[in-house]
Amino acid sequence: MPAAGPRRLHLNAFLMNAGHHDAAWRHPRTQPERVTDRRYFQHLAQTAERGKLDSLFFADGLALWGKVKHNALGGFEPLTLLSALATVTEHIGLIATVSTTFNDPFHTARKFASLDHLSGGRAGWNIVTSGTVDEARNFGQDAHLEHGLRYDRAREFVEVATKLWDSWEDDAVLLDRVRGIYVDAGKVQPIDHRGEHFAVQGPLNVPRSPQGYPLLVQAGSSEDGKEFAAQYAEAVFTAQQTLADGQAFYKDLKNRLARYGRSEDDLKILPGICPVIGSTEAEARALEQELTDLQVPEYGLAQLSGMLGTDLTGLPLDGPLPALPEERDINGNKSRFTLVAELARRDGLTLRELIARLGGGRGHRVFAGTPEQIADQLEEWFTQGAADGFNVMPPHLPGGLEDFVDHVVPLLQDRGLFRTEYTGRTLREHYGLPRPAGRLAPSVTAAEGQPA
Amino acid sequence: MPAAGPRRLHLNAFLMNAGHHDAAWRHPRTQPERVTDRRYFQHLAQTAERGKLDSLFFADGLALWGKVKHNALGGFEPLTLLSALATVTEHIGLIATVSTTFNDPFHTARKFASLDHLSGGRAGWNIVTSGTVDEARNFGQDAHLEHGLRYDRAREFVEVATKLWDSWEDDAVLLDRVRGIYVDAGKVQPIDHRGEHFAVQGPLNVPRSPQGYPLLVQAGSSEDGKEFAAQYAEAVFTAQQTLADGQAFYKDLKNRLARYGRSEDDLKILPGICPVIGSTEAEARALEQELTDLQVPEYGLAQLSGMLGTDLTGLPLDGPLPALPEERDINGNKSRFTLVAELARRDGLTLRELIARLGGGRGHRVFAGTPEQIADQLEEWFTQGAADGFNVMPPHLPGGLEDFVDHVVPLLQDRGLFRTEYTGRTLREHYGLPRPAGRLAPSVTAAEGQPA
Repeated sequence: MPAAGPRRLHLNAFLMNAGHHDAAWRHPRTQPERVTDRRYFQHLAQTAERGKLDSLFFADGLALWGKVKHNALGGFEPLTLLSALATVTEHIGLIATVSTTFNDPFHTARKFASLDHLSGGRAGWNIVTSGTVDEARNFGQDAHLEHGLRYDRAREFVEVATKLWDSWEDDAVLLDRVRGIYVDAGKVQPIDHRGEHFAVQGPLNVPRSPQGYPLLVQAGSSEDGKEFAAQYAEAVFTAQQTLADGQAFYKDLKNRLARYGRSEDDLKILPGICPVIGSTEAEARALEQELTDLQVPEYGLAQLSGMLGTDLTGLPLDGPLPALPEERDINGNKSRFTLVAELARRDGLTLRELIARLGGGRGHRVFAGTPEQIADQLEEWFTQGAADGFNVMPPHLPGGLEDFVDHVVPLLQDRGLFRTEYTGRTLREHYGLPRPAGRLAPSVTAAEGQPA
Repeated sequence: MPAAGPRRLHLNAFLMNAGHHDAAWRHPRTQPERVTDRRYFQHLAQTAERGKLDSLFFADGLALWGKVKHNALGGFEPLTLLSALATVTEHIGLIATVSTTFNDPFHTARKFASLDHLSGGRAGWNIVTSGTVDEARNFGQDAHLEHGLRYDRAREFVEVATKLWDSWEDDAVLLDRVRGIYVDAGKVQPIDHRGEHFAVQGPLNVPRSPQGYPLLVQAGSSEDGKEFAAQYAEAVFTAQQTLADGQAFYKDLKNRLARYGRSEDDLKILPGICPVIGSTEAEARALEQELTDLQVPEYGLAQLSGMLGTDLTGLPLDGPLPALPEERDINGNKSRFTLVAELARRDGLTLRELIARLGGGRGHRVFAGTPEQIADQLEEWFTQGAADGFNVMPPHLPGGLEDFVDHVVPLLQDRGLFRTEYTGRTLREHYGLPRPAGRLAPSVTAAEGQPA
């Protein structure tokens, strides 16, 4: 149900420890000593809510990322952190990344139902697959699953989760104290799922939550990823470097929806943007340069090696990239590989230049400018068929988010592009997406939760 | 490090939806319509903290329990709920039950480390094994693991978790902005665990938390359970019906500690008590009778069938128990089976009488009386070698907890048996238990988190 009135864009705050720039923790405006202090994230969440943003979001991985020496990206686990933030916010959506590769659907469906109750209907699930050997090795496996198999598992995982969320009808809980009937047992049903990857009896041990399902989010842009998104996702985070690329991706993905019986409004596309904000363009560029100057090339090279599936250790920083494999031979993040390889080729970058270019957003678009220039960029992408909204990735935190909320959001509001107050109660309502109807037919009845 | 001064007892609030009595939800003093409202649990947690209790605790199961029609014990998942409660409390410990049977040690260690950071050192883990077929069937298995095997897996699970918590030294995070060194890489080490049940590379992706490890709690009283507790647990919840049984259990468990190189102070024993509180004894007994009168026999019979591993459906409520299996043939909760069977035999109870007796605490001790009488009971068990503290199980919530905090706690304080203010900061400090030293030797050094 899209809201009546003018089309409005959606904003998600993608929060990451000291910020998205890989050298953010070295910058004087950040507070890396606070990344295991919940009050730090409480301030960030409340700042995003002050800006009336739709949601905030945490990425996740199931292993310690990258070269720990120069930037240890460990810290809070998203579901526990977001549960804590649910009590200190009132409106903003809370999106957690949880992998389908090394989790069980029962646990995952249950925790999201719990978060949705805790937050009064503000939970979202960024559905990912885990594609690194270090993650596999934390779960008893020596190699990680092949890309296509990971998506097969992900599809079945989501199917099981949605069946579990539907295993209680909305009106199952009766609480008839006089007759001693707590639940209408016919409205709580096992799911009896038996598939390729999972066998799950159900029902869930959580009553149906305010949103029915958490908002389903997806962030992979490979062929497998786009097809998965077209089938299941309601919001998509994507990395697009140019307006033309953004338009092509937008059109491609929206066009895929019809084959799953879905309309274009059923899925919101949010390209990432890392806004480097200054009160003048020169100030913004100077801040960008400060951050680049703080990069540790050894760290950047290790990150780049991971993205490109190619060991770059020891190569001259001022030389070109070596020959790269084909996307089909990449078993990690395929779309990020292609984006980075394309960026280096298109602009003829040296390794050092590529590391600098990727430092701010790991392949997401970085834009340095004044609040007006940034608002112009967002308006252009939003009105020119490249975006329904944006995944905002502040290069440094908390300042980069505060600047966005205080200086960019008001411009978007003045232009009539963004809400000035929350009008909905749930995350789905913020995004203009419907609450899923349960799948238990009203006519089904059975005694004591057993199948008819 | 036990605190100097007189020996003080410890109190844990065991919270359960509308209360521990199985008919609590039908009683006018309860609010079952609020069990998926976090503000309800927020009130309970703040009430327990007002009483200066050491901790609060949630049990857990990985399937919907019992006869859903008459008492659907679903609701929040403990780790998400406790994470939410961490932000609205300041002192009280937060203990979550997590099963070792259908979880991965990496996820579990990580979530508890996250909760410990979120709460500033107040996390506790009640380590259980899952012993029902309904739980197994939610995780792809048609039968559940044999009791001894479940404990084998539990031991290895805890070993892996403690290695993961120790995979970061306390002083690993350097944040040397000038030199660009985030972490002393020699102080973050893989664990390279390869065992019978798990292969986990590590390190954890969470820096070492305030308590080092969450408080390790255990609640099984079978032979396997007691031996597990003697090896790992720092607090034990147990069901004991009489002072003599409590003393025997206390002595037995404390005597087992030496073989693991532990002292009696290293483990606190907290028998459960369901206090039915009235301003007179007659008022307390009347409340107990009210609750009994609200029981649904069909529900009680189903619960009893589960505890006794015996289908009792259709048996006359006013007749005796049928012949029961031996404990060695029970593959669920062995100690609860024996306790219930013994209770019925000792007191010659009919099925109806047994259901009434178990309604308040599912085998835990129920005591109805005035605040003075309840304080007397606690003092007796505490001073006569049966308890280091108590697992307080209010029959109805929130009133039963409010009455305990407002009327029983002050008596314990007046008698010098219980704290009047929190003196410690962490859950371990409340219980007088030491923070575990990390296991990485200070001399170990290696580059980039690789083993030397």
